Amino acid sequence: MAVRVDLNISLDGFATTTDQTPENPFGQDWGRLTAAYVGTRTFRERVLHDTSGEGTTGVDDRYAAAYFEDVAAEIMGAGMFGLHDHADDPDWRGWWGEEPPFHCPVFVLTHIPRESIEFANGTAFHFLDATPEEALASATDAAGGGDVRIGGGPTTIRPFLAAGLVDRLHVAIAPILLGRGIRLWDGLRGLEAGYTVTSETAESGTIHLTFAR
Amino acid sequence: MAVRVDLNISLDGFATTTDQTPENPFGQDWGRLTAAYVGTRTFRERVLHDTSGEGTTGVDDRYAAAYFEDVAAEIMGAGMFGLHDHADDPDWRGWWGEEPPFHCPVFVLTHIPRESIEFANGTAFHFLDATPEEALASATDAAGGGDVRIGGGPTTIRPFLAAGLVDRLHVAIAPILLGRGIRLWDGLRGLEAGYTVTSETAESGTIHLTFAR
Repeated sequence: MAVRVDLNISLDGFATTTDQTPENPFGQDWGRLTAAYVGTRTFRERVLHDTSGEGTTGVDDRYAAAYFEDVAAEIMGAGMFGLHDHADDPDWRGWWGEEPPFHCPVFVLTHIPRESIEFANGTAFHFLDATPEEALASATDAAGGGDVRIGGGPTTIRPFLAAGLVDRLHVAIAPILLGRGIRLWDGLRGLEAGYTVTSETAESGTIHLTFAR
Repeated sequence: MAVRVDLNISLDGFATTTDQTPENPFGQDWGRLTAAYVGTRTFRERVLHDTSGEGTTGVDDRYAAAYFEDVAAEIMGAGMFGLHDHADDPDWRGWWGEEPPFHCPVFVLTHIPRESIEFANGTAFHFLDATPEEALASATDAAGGGDVRIGGGPTTIRPFLAAGLVDRLHVAIAPILLGRGIRLWDGLRGLEAGYTVTSETAESGTIHLTFAR
């Protein structure tokens, strides 16, 4: 069982874009940040349910396949679930429609918990007002020996990293400069201590960086 | 003839450390930021005049050798020359002693120019109060067909990058998080447009990133 983080960031370290609007909830920059990942065959199969066999099959796809392996519970921030923009909507069920691509229990950190939401595909959202350690205990129980992913955004992930709770951090660095957004690395001086840090460059130009214990 | 930048940065983008003191003018973090470069055989030979043959000979050394190739003039900021800490010392000759590792004309940007300083090994420091374009014109003349390097620090380099004056940017990214210092990438959104961006990882874990026209 491992606690994992997988994120897409830009060369200048932005993991979350900040140009979202209600009409374009992911913002303009998001597509560029995630283009290599979204272009993989694995993403097309697993998230878009595209069985045509199209999509890239190189280094990016190897990481995309690893992304989905062994994750049995996930933790995310209220922002990633969309609660900040839908705080007054008790019927909000997240961005992902009726087929959320998680297929496991997802613990959403929020100061205003609400009723759990369950989907036919195995995804269930539970809402917790909890510290990182408490949330991780709940997710670890739910994972039953599988991995727990801290999904995002960066503001949610940083306290888990700073507290030494993450076993493996994989960051896909897109070869672009966004110049705006929310940075992953703030306040994490010396994080590399206790990890082995490796990296490799994919055909797309994406740099896959891994901190592993 | 090309206009080049070569820099060492951390994963979180810091190119200049800010923990300098008069006793330790490069700061504690500087050694970690430049460890892979300083460890190369080329650096030991070219900068330390160490002819023992020791030092690394892999990917880092290939970039270190390229660092010294074809540069016939350099531009740097007043801070890199040490003027900020020695503004009142008319005899200040830079950090590098009597063997500055440049072996070419160096144009130091400052609002308070002073007399040129020449060294026996071919290094000469000239002091200019000039725009990036003006400084580059002077350096290009002095380079006589060779390359011009914009040496640093990042605050000096950014306007040259933003103005589209740089043909090749090589950044050696150390696999560490400093959490403090001066960032290279600030205000450079979209810089990748017009460049081919490539990267490779050295045996040391350093990621060598290149923006080339």
